[in-house]
Amino acid sequence: MEKVRLGIIGVGNIGSAHVQNILEGRCPELEITAAADRRESRREWIGKRLPEAAVFTEGEELIASGTCDAILIAVPHYQHPGLAIAGFEHGLHVMCEKPAGVYTLQVREMIAAADRHPDLTFGMMFNQRTNCVYRKLKEMIDGGELGELRRMSWLITDWYRTQYYYDSGAWRATWNGEGGGVLLNQCPHQLDLLQWLCGLPVAVLARCYEGKWHDIEVEDDVTAFLEFENGATGVFVTTTGDAPGTNRLEITGTRGKAVCEEDQLTFWRNAEDERTWCFSCGEGFRKPDCERTAVETDGKNPQHLAVLNAFAAHILRGEPLVADGREGIRGLMLSNAMHLSSWLGREVSLPIDEQLFLDLLTEKRRTSRRKEERDVTMPTEGSY
Amino acid sequence: MEKVRLGIIGVGNIGSAHVQNILEGRCPELEITAAADRRESRREWIGKRLPEAAVFTEGEELIASGTCDAILIAVPHYQHPGLAIAGFEHGLHVMCEKPAGVYTLQVREMIAAADRHPDLTFGMMFNQRTNCVYRKLKEMIDGGELGELRRMSWLITDWYRTQYYYDSGAWRATWNGEGGGVLLNQCPHQLDLLQWLCGLPVAVLARCYEGKWHDIEVEDDVTAFLEFENGATGVFVTTTGDAPGTNRLEITGTRGKAVCEEDQLTFWRNAEDERTWCFSCGEGFRKPDCERTAVETDGKNPQHLAVLNAFAAHILRGEPLVADGREGIRGLMLSNAMHLSSWLGREVSLPIDEQLFLDLLTEKRRTSRRKEERDVTMPTEGSY
Repeated sequence: MEKVRLGIIGVGNIGSAHVQNILEGRCPELEITAAADRRESRREWIGKRLPEAAVFTEGEELIASGTCDAILIAVPHYQHPGLAIAGFEHGLHVMCEKPAGVYTLQVREMIAAADRHPDLTFGMMFNQRTNCVYRKLKEMIDGGELGELRRMSWLITDWYRTQYYYDSGAWRATWNGEGGGVLLNQCPHQLDLLQWLCGLPVAVLARCYEGKWHDIEVEDDVTAFLEFENGATGVFVTTTGDAPGTNRLEITGTRGKAVCEEDQLTFWRNAEDERTWCFSCGEGFRKPDCERTAVETDGKNPQHLAVLNAFAAHILRGEPLVADGREGIRGLMLSNAMHLSSWLGREVSLPIDEQLFLDLLTEKRRTSRRKEERDVTMPTEGSY
Repeated sequence: MEKVRLGIIGVGNIGSAHVQNILEGRCPELEITAAADRRESRREWIGKRLPEAAVFTEGEELIASGTCDAILIAVPHYQHPGLAIAGFEHGLHVMCEKPAGVYTLQVREMIAAADRHPDLTFGMMFNQRTNCVYRKLKEMIDGGELGELRRMSWLITDWYRTQYYYDSGAWRATWNGEGGGVLLNQCPHQLDLLQWLCGLPVAVLARCYEGKWHDIEVEDDVTAFLEFENGATGVFVTTTGDAPGTNRLEITGTRGKAVCEEDQLTFWRNAEDERTWCFSCGEGFRKPDCERTAVETDGKNPQHLAVLNAFAAHILRGEPLVADGREGIRGLMLSNAMHLSSWLGREVSLPIDEQLFLDLLTEKRRTSRRKEERDVTMPTEGSY
């Protein structure tokens, strides 16, 4: 079997999980031939696990080494676009961990580089798109089963993190190291799913609370109000401070309502479109007849494995990706819009003023806290 | 058995439901001795049902007639405070339908009148406070089981109304007749429960959409963001346009989370307070141990009957009311704050600038639409 020679840049929390998966044979078309990490302990770890792999300190060294066909970028967010661009320029396929980057201007450069190399595969690690519940919901929305979008609400507050988590890495939860908090680290999946399912809103009004529940400088509590082009509205609430927290997505259309909660998809199907009913019903309080169903899905939720295997299959045989890398800018636009709205204290339109966002972020970075480096790798199982 | 002689002012949708309940013997300590309504058809209806009752056109006539000891006010909202004040001045006990009034300045006058007559009973029809689920939740919060309030979210979008509903009365859904839409007519219960359970927020930022789903001039779609004194935040979403809609209240504290949905109360109890855990746990992703319970309640939900029977018992024997009339201003303050925030396009602090609210409302009334009068009484069963 032909295999894609993969170089992994960053073998920290999530990078090491990818290494484990591949070593345990779950990605049969991928072979790790190179790895890079700035930490000696991690280079030693990979050296023991993969004695034949080429090991580097810097991602750029790995990219220039000719030891692989594709790279998987799993380093702090700011470095994603730069490494991806370097990869494309060296003729490498690129799989990028979420988020696509920290600010959209940076990601636009990455997309431009990808567009200059249409022969190369560019994937984004939106592994939550492989969840059967969201896949099924997407299929139902695209098939018109919900009618026209009316309202959405996502309470995604089950991203609990302790202070220990934030103290575990110098880059974590700083403007300079990570460029944001819960929006940049935990929520890229939900922000991507939100735009994948509902489209991007045209306006965002958000409150991002910085260091509300933890001793950090970035946001760990966000409430955002969204407005879509057709007038539909939405609410997005997230935090790393709530225990036990909630993950509940509700999407209401004119033909029905869908709720994703606790790995279940429930659908309420109206017998008639609400818009027609409203103006034709001769009673005051009566709703259209409605049938509630526990929606069956295929039950599959292959997560990172599906993304990586589709990446290999796309490279080898042109099969579809789970998420094209170019789509990464959409969820990031939403994230940047929430930050910008909060910083300005007013609603912002999408696309946002991307230069203004960068200017304000740069100002935040200038005064960003310096944190002590600690050498901690935490198991991420069940946390993404 | 001693009975309270009750005069009902307004025998429309809800007033006629009260009449039915009393006539069917569900309020054994109340006897309807008088009724008033401006519509002839309704006066005829009450005359047939209660041949011995004194029947009037105007509430003021009933109040001055000496035919009752207490009045139940069930007319359009603007008239609530004026009739209540007249009632107190004639030595009558007062039970007022929700909302307490349309604007807080008006309600302050009503409270002042009540305070001048401490011997008279003043109750507000907050019948949802009798729901076993909310009563139990209130008991748990007051008992400290949730810890300190962190976040609340109420999706109360199951107030579906057709265009027919809005066309059924000339006063309905106009600034001049009703003074507001879903916030004034459907949501007073939830706004009262919200402040009863969580306290009043200190700031409100809201978007009220006027005539979004119906041909009306007042709001039928609202999303509000709330901030409480201790930093806790909340979201309140309501509409009369969604079918089938949702009624889901989630309240999260530092010791646990409670969800009220589909007449069930579910509680997640943390083994340890999150605030202690966050800074003492030596793992990054771990939450406090948590136990989930389907909370048992007494199963009782006596609604209007409980409010009316408690009103009679308070008059006769000083037993506790379900809701003192003076508390009606709190939910109305929240409602007025949502309107004011939306009209001004910015966050407002509570207590709001009450004169500014009245000035803006008066401006809205000046251009309020004239609607044709129709003589419709709709069954309200199951709608409150």
